[in-house]
Amino acid sequence: MGPKTVKNAAGRLVPLEINGEPVIPFKGIGKHRPQGGKYSPPVPTCSDYPSDGNKVVKSLEVALRKCGLRSGMTISTHHHMRDGDLISNKIFEIASSMGVKNLVWFPSASFPCNDPVIKFLEDGTINRIEGSMNGPLGRFVSEGKMKGTAVLRSHGGRVQAIQDGEVKIDIAVMVAPTADPFGNAKGTGGKSSCGVIGYAKADSMYASRVIIVTDNLIDVPCYPMEIEGNYVDFVVVTDKIGIPEKIVSGTTQVTKSPDRLLIAELTASFLEKSGILRDGITMQAGAGGTSLAIAVFVSEILKNKGWKSKFGFGGSTKYMVEMLEEGQMGYILDAQAFDLDAVKSVENNPEHIPYPVFNAYNYHSKGNLTSMMDIMILGATEVDLNFNGNVVTHSDGYLLHGIGGWQNCLHARNVIIPVPLFRDRIPVIVDEVTTLCGPGELIDVIITERGIAINPLRKDLLKSIKGSGLPVRTIKELKEEAERICGKPQKPQFDEKIVAAIKWVDGTVLDVVRKLKTN
Amino acid sequence: MGPKTVKNAAGRLVPLEINGEPVIPFKGIGKHRPQGGKYSPPVPTCSDYPSDGNKVVKSLEVALRKCGLRSGMTISTHHHMRDGDLISNKIFEIASSMGVKNLVWFPSASFPCNDPVIKFLEDGTINRIEGSMNGPLGRFVSEGKMKGTAVLRSHGGRVQAIQDGEVKIDIAVMVAPTADPFGNAKGTGGKSSCGVIGYAKADSMYASRVIIVTDNLIDVPCYPMEIEGNYVDFVVVTDKIGIPEKIVSGTTQVTKSPDRLLIAELTASFLEKSGILRDGITMQAGAGGTSLAIAVFVSEILKNKGWKSKFGFGGSTKYMVEMLEEGQMGYILDAQAFDLDAVKSVENNPEHIPYPVFNAYNYHSKGNLTSMMDIMILGATEVDLNFNGNVVTHSDGYLLHGIGGWQNCLHARNVIIPVPLFRDRIPVIVDEVTTLCGPGELIDVIITERGIAINPLRKDLLKSIKGSGLPVRTIKELKEEAERICGKPQKPQFDEKIVAAIKWVDGTVLDVVRKLKTN
Repeated sequence: MGPKTVKNAAGRLVPLEINGEPVIPFKGIGKHRPQGGKYSPPVPTCSDYPSDGNKVVKSLEVALRKCGLRSGMTISTHHHMRDGDLISNKIFEIASSMGVKNLVWFPSASFPCNDPVIKFLEDGTINRIEGSMNGPLGRFVSEGKMKGTAVLRSHGGRVQAIQDGEVKIDIAVMVAPTADPFGNAKGTGGKSSCGVIGYAKADSMYASRVIIVTDNLIDVPCYPMEIEGNYVDFVVVTDKIGIPEKIVSGTTQVTKSPDRLLIAELTASFLEKSGILRDGITMQAGAGGTSLAIAVFVSEILKNKGWKSKFGFGGSTKYMVEMLEEGQMGYILDAQAFDLDAVKSVENNPEHIPYPVFNAYNYHSKGNLTSMMDIMILGATEVDLNFNGNVVTHSDGYLLHGIGGWQNCLHARNVIIPVPLFRDRIPVIVDEVTTLCGPGELIDVIITERGIAINPLRKDLLKSIKGSGLPVRTIKELKEEAERICGKPQKPQFDEKIVAAIKWVDGTVLDVVRKLKTN
Repeated sequence: MGPKTVKNAAGRLVPLEINGEPVIPFKGIGKHRPQGGKYSPPVPTCSDYPSDGNKVVKSLEVALRKCGLRSGMTISTHHHMRDGDLISNKIFEIASSMGVKNLVWFPSASFPCNDPVIKFLEDGTINRIEGSMNGPLGRFVSEGKMKGTAVLRSHGGRVQAIQDGEVKIDIAVMVAPTADPFGNAKGTGGKSSCGVIGYAKADSMYASRVIIVTDNLIDVPCYPMEIEGNYVDFVVVTDKIGIPEKIVSGTTQVTKSPDRLLIAELTASFLEKSGILRDGITMQAGAGGTSLAIAVFVSEILKNKGWKSKFGFGGSTKYMVEMLEEGQMGYILDAQAFDLDAVKSVENNPEHIPYPVFNAYNYHSKGNLTSMMDIMILGATEVDLNFNGNVVTHSDGYLLHGIGGWQNCLHARNVIIPVPLFRDRIPVIVDEVTTLCGPGELIDVIITERGIAINPLRKDLLKSIKGSGLPVRTIKELKEEAERICGKPQKPQFDEKIVAAIKWVDGTVLDVVRKLKTN
């Protein structure tokens, strides 16, 4: 027996209430108009803070106690330490030892290093996670073991939820590679430099209480202030906020797979022949192996033509840094560094600019960066005949990972999804996505190793590549080819129970993930 | 017949209502605890803004109309163009031509170039000014001619009022020397560079509508973003936002008056002999001739001793820039550049850092910069036997100028007011200040050409300079000496009518200015 659901504008059955709070079903792209004002955190007063500006306390536990940590609170963290994060789990260890229950963990993303929080989900310390869940955490949720319902938001949706007060953060615990005693903090410097901490801004502005945890305390002023000390309550100095070699994961390498390289080449060729690629374009590609290969091919074309991309938005990698340094890119605007070359570049290159997610991705803002981007290269676990995309579940129904900036990036002018026709003999193009993360009207082109499908809505693109010799096919043809090779995949069987909600960028509910039937 | 008043904690009679809104009488330093949350401006949505990020409209009038300018609105401006401001008056010309009435003008300061708004005060376009008023504007108010009651706030109090929603800005018109079409804006670059626009941040964050006016439109990204385009509705490109030679007033020169130089020397000597001056101090001095002379003397002492000031907070001048460049100062944190050397320094020196008033001065914040400062050199129009200070009226009762950052700066560790014993044969030290702007418990030392008075609360200072040979006297002795020379000044005669309220840094009402009796 599941909760009462209604069919939203995308035809998905979604509930009207999640975790006891009313929610709004998706109404269509750009159709939901926010009401009322931004969230209004408590007004602080200087009289409660040390006049010498020194907010250092002796441990994270002391800071959490001084923040009044108690059952039912919402605790936020950012993920800039990535798989080298040494602090998030500690928060819940402390909470558990204090007997605190039913917390909501609100990370900007979680990583395998966060799997130990499963025990705090099991013992009731944490009620639910509102944020991305990969691997064992995702499995835990998919099997219906989490007490509360997960809420998955895009990076921009997370910021929107904070700003609009859909999520009220009681305590934000923000690690910072460098900070001063007043709480001004940044992503560069010290032994745990991660380049930028662009996911932390909204949390610091709207949380009731903010704790900075650093292993590199410097004198005032820590500058540039990615986090402003005026929003910070306490500063904790610790030995180590992250494991440096894991802060930057080693996976951000150009693909070596011949199939993926073919997809990348085809994508670059499509960009060139369609006329999308031109001097002065703005472009964003992820850090996956195929995306990086595309970036390399595109960079070659730019170099050969003497063209320059105006700016790129990071997650930044060494490939973007090379484009910046060699003159194929004017600026990198960056919310997150994916590798050490990118970290070094932020430290040294004034044209590699920290640019918070709050500014780049928030849909409840007076415009944002994604809609200004010309070319957006994105991945997907599934796409369907209506060009709808899925990034959180695989065809077996398990929660795989979070939405990241994917939904936000769909607002770019040309959204291109290069994907293999099948993965492990499971087709990527399906009749209907298992979980709807992005409506097809925003997805322009699917590029596979066996052909390119252009969204019929983009008549201009269909026209512009006529006679180009590119292997254009309908999405149906691609799907049928995949099924000829792999067979039609079996659909996963779900229970009624909703284990996760998928929010759209405007805070409405786009879809849900249900508990997997296990027998 | 005046309004009902009560005696506040400073013993001043203040009303419980100003301009039809309830207000809170001053309760004592650090005694007022703010209730509730920060102001909650309307949630915007990207769907209302151009997806290509281009918010340029063809004129200020178009922008104001699109913002829905109408009677009764509150319009904010910043004062970084100083006496070269070409835009503020234009707003009210446009409003007047549209038949709009009863506006509230909420500038961060006004200058003589703004005197033409008197005609808009007279014709009903503007109901009142909440901000500083000098010269003819001050006279206009003092003579009871303004329809509404003026509200004078410190720079930090202005920001506090915005953040807390005491003042709800309908339209912020922010001029910017450089901006991009998305509305990202900064104080450097172009033909009207003013270095920083550190007074504009709170306005842009909390106003319902924000208009950027620039004469130097560049491509995205305009960086560093002192104003973030995510808060901006429209961008107006105009020929000229300011008269460059008047943006930076020529008055910021070291005094040549022998008396003032004596005060400056005595101040530097006091700082040295009292032990306040030491390696690593933080210091702030204004841009007046005496303050600048003090800065020069202090810089000499630092240089001779091989000491360095950790940082200084601007308003910055060429004297601070010299200290920075020659190694007597670590950083300049800066909300406002007072001269062209300072502007150039912000443009070129990474250790000259834009630092908004929002971060430096806001008392309803989790700490601020002023309380961290060791040495604060301030001016005053009057001080009294209880060390109370006045900066807005002169002994003749006329409103002279605004509070600036004066009240905020009173929170520094050592507040020193160097003043002449008399000006134009009118004593500066009086029995009781005409208008109370800062309670005496926050003012530590008064330094005149005829002696130094130390606040009896500062027993430590009295002790530390014992035997120093400095001419220490009681404030009463100084007052009596002034009266021996000049005679006892006649007190101004006031009507009951309140023409201006003086807010304290926490939003409570510290004092009022009454209409002058004119016959």
